[in-house]
Amino acid sequence: MNLEQKFELLGVNNAPGQEVRIGTTDFEHAMQGEYLGGVPVDFSHGNIDAFKPTPGTLEAWQRGFQRGGQQAYTEYRGSAVIRDGVASRLAEFTGRVIDATDELILTPGTQGALFLALGTTVTTGTKAAVMEPDYFANRKLVQFFGGEIVPIPLQYQSQASDVGPDMQRLEDAFKQGVKVFVFSNPNNPTGAVYPQGKINAIARLANQYGVALVVDQLYSRLLYSGETYCHLRASEHAPESMITIMGPSKTESLSGFRLGVAFGSPTLIERMERLQAIVSLRAAGYNQAALETWFNEPDGWIQQRINEHEKIRDDLLTVFRNAGTLTATPQAGSYLFPQLPELTVDLQLFVSLLRHQAGVTVTPGTEFAPAMNSCFRLNYSQDHKAAVAAAERIVQMVDFYKA
Amino acid sequence: MNLEQKFELLGVNNAPGQEVRIGTTDFEHAMQGEYLGGVPVDFSHGNIDAFKPTPGTLEAWQRGFQRGGQQAYTEYRGSAVIRDGVASRLAEFTGRVIDATDELILTPGTQGALFLALGTTVTTGTKAAVMEPDYFANRKLVQFFGGEIVPIPLQYQSQASDVGPDMQRLEDAFKQGVKVFVFSNPNNPTGAVYPQGKINAIARLANQYGVALVVDQLYSRLLYSGETYCHLRASEHAPESMITIMGPSKTESLSGFRLGVAFGSPTLIERMERLQAIVSLRAAGYNQAALETWFNEPDGWIQQRINEHEKIRDDLLTVFRNAGTLTATPQAGSYLFPQLPELTVDLQLFVSLLRHQAGVTVTPGTEFAPAMNSCFRLNYSQDHKAAVAAAERIVQMVDFYKA
Repeated sequence: MNLEQKFELLGVNNAPGQEVRIGTTDFEHAMQGEYLGGVPVDFSHGNIDAFKPTPGTLEAWQRGFQRGGQQAYTEYRGSAVIRDGVASRLAEFTGRVIDATDELILTPGTQGALFLALGTTVTTGTKAAVMEPDYFANRKLVQFFGGEIVPIPLQYQSQASDVGPDMQRLEDAFKQGVKVFVFSNPNNPTGAVYPQGKINAIARLANQYGVALVVDQLYSRLLYSGETYCHLRASEHAPESMITIMGPSKTESLSGFRLGVAFGSPTLIERMERLQAIVSLRAAGYNQAALETWFNEPDGWIQQRINEHEKIRDDLLTVFRNAGTLTATPQAGSYLFPQLPELTVDLQLFVSLLRHQAGVTVTPGTEFAPAMNSCFRLNYSQDHKAAVAAAERIVQMVDFYKA
Repeated sequence: MNLEQKFELLGVNNAPGQEVRIGTTDFEHAMQGEYLGGVPVDFSHGNIDAFKPTPGTLEAWQRGFQRGGQQAYTEYRGSAVIRDGVASRLAEFTGRVIDATDELILTPGTQGALFLALGTTVTTGTKAAVMEPDYFANRKLVQFFGGEIVPIPLQYQSQASDVGPDMQRLEDAFKQGVKVFVFSNPNNPTGAVYPQGKINAIARLANQYGVALVVDQLYSRLLYSGETYCHLRASEHAPESMITIMGPSKTESLSGFRLGVAFGSPTLIERMERLQAIVSLRAAGYNQAALETWFNEPDGWIQQRINEHEKIRDDLLTVFRNAGTLTATPQAGSYLFPQLPELTVDLQLFVSLLRHQAGVTVTPGTEFAPAMNSCFRLNYSQDHKAAVAAAERIVQMVDFYKA
């Protein structure tokens, strides 16, 4: 693959947050129905002005800055003191100890952690199993490192006990030489949570076939009432070669600091540090200090944040379902992934028109699986009222363009 | 190349700042002479407690944080407003306009910029010319992306007009199919500055042979009295395909923010943004705001910083030269690259002993060119008195271990 082909696969204009770079084509000629007024809502990412960063984070950052050189020039894998604190709190959360010296690295965002995890496990010709739909960068990373994607469909509209990969498909892929399996759980974009049985089965298969696991648990804290989350790393079958990824960018709204954490196999963590040394050296030194507040929030703060998201989720589900739009119930996280009926315009144009005509930005489903051209994703970590009104505008737009 | 081989090439234990991960081997058995007391000095990187971050940076960062979501979620290439300001100030500094929309990207440190620049120009089999000695990551990046290194020796102990590559060697390399030429100017680790004639000749050759240039100008502001710096991008022969890299981590001591800037060919910048989208998304949003102070410092501040470094440089040169140690005069930057006489121990052990016995941390020359096993690098952006005392301890240590 030459450089031109390689970068063709890395298109970012439809990526969340990049809409500003799409030209202002004239959409008038394609418009049906009228302009829909209201507060513009950008569902492509969370609104941290509606859900603000964890209290105390600014002060923690400032203390880091005041520490000067020792905080600016940490080890590439991050400050030892900060790793200690984060490791013990994540061990408690995930139900298994983490050695802060050898089993954890701080990265620039969970994106940084994913990049390093796949960079250390995928090279030219490596077969990597990727769920569909799943976070858009997973596919791109495998391709960038020269790997071969083995797609595994996600069952997310089925019975709760069946959510996740079809295990026969997954085992077949492992048998055919897959070396890495990367997936997000809770799933991005659907909010589906893999049940305990699936998690244990994945762990067992990975062990049996010697497959490395990269488990992106970015949304595992934002778990709705009645749901249970199972940490694969704490499964008794958890394979030696695995990396778990988390970070405070979403639930805690610390995305502006670019902080992520990867923890797991010392061999992989060591490689990830070597790679980080040529990628960006380290997560910005002062920003590492903001992690002091992570899993260390004021009493009740996280629970309140979850409750507020749950209310938005429920109201949006009502809006979409009343309009007959098929939408699975997110069990965790802040993504909805509704399915559109047949339209008179293609998904890409509909998404552009949504923005132009109704002031609503969403992410097309094709970012998460090439064939998902009738779905779109909303990050509903937004102002509650504005989000509901925007969902109602989406429903009206579907009416305008229904085939 | 399999993953194990790939990561073997990425060793970081000798990298600056990573000394903490080298085990505390017992060096007693190898010691000659006594312990040398004094303030420990870590010459592997600059001391930002001695040379503090630009005044006003903390406040600029805080204003960024207060701006909330718009500052946290910028375009992947960085905030448009901040790019505007940086582009116009860098245009003035480098003597050629920069289109802030298409010709500039903010990155996590200049390391991030280098990674992206080489990631977009080097793939499996690409021949890349690399200077020796030069910044250690250049070699590693070419190897990581599957490229083939074509080494070009740096003339740095010659007449000022001859500093840089031997132009015949460089042209031969270009003739043999080199597609990318990456180099730092001022050179890291020697502080050599390429004269105008060399810069123009490099530009002409790159044009003639269609070679992309990646010019790392990280230290181009810290230019000593009587020296002239020539920006390749402003040369009338500058090729279309080129990237210039700068950042505020060194002279301005903002390393703790992880900020860098790459500017040049829109095609390459566009690719770099695509790559950044899967590497780390963007330079940390709030940190971008710290660039407000860059090339915007209080009157006289930069000149004073240069003067202070020049005095340290001169004192260290005196210490080393009085002891008969060969050391080229840095024309810019804050690196010295002295050459050791023959010793009874190898360079790696001498460097370890320096740390153990004399409290002095330096970087072995082999990090900058595989064969340079009698040189070492000092970053003398340090407390003046402590640096001079540490240099005197180095001289004593050379006496202890001279063959």
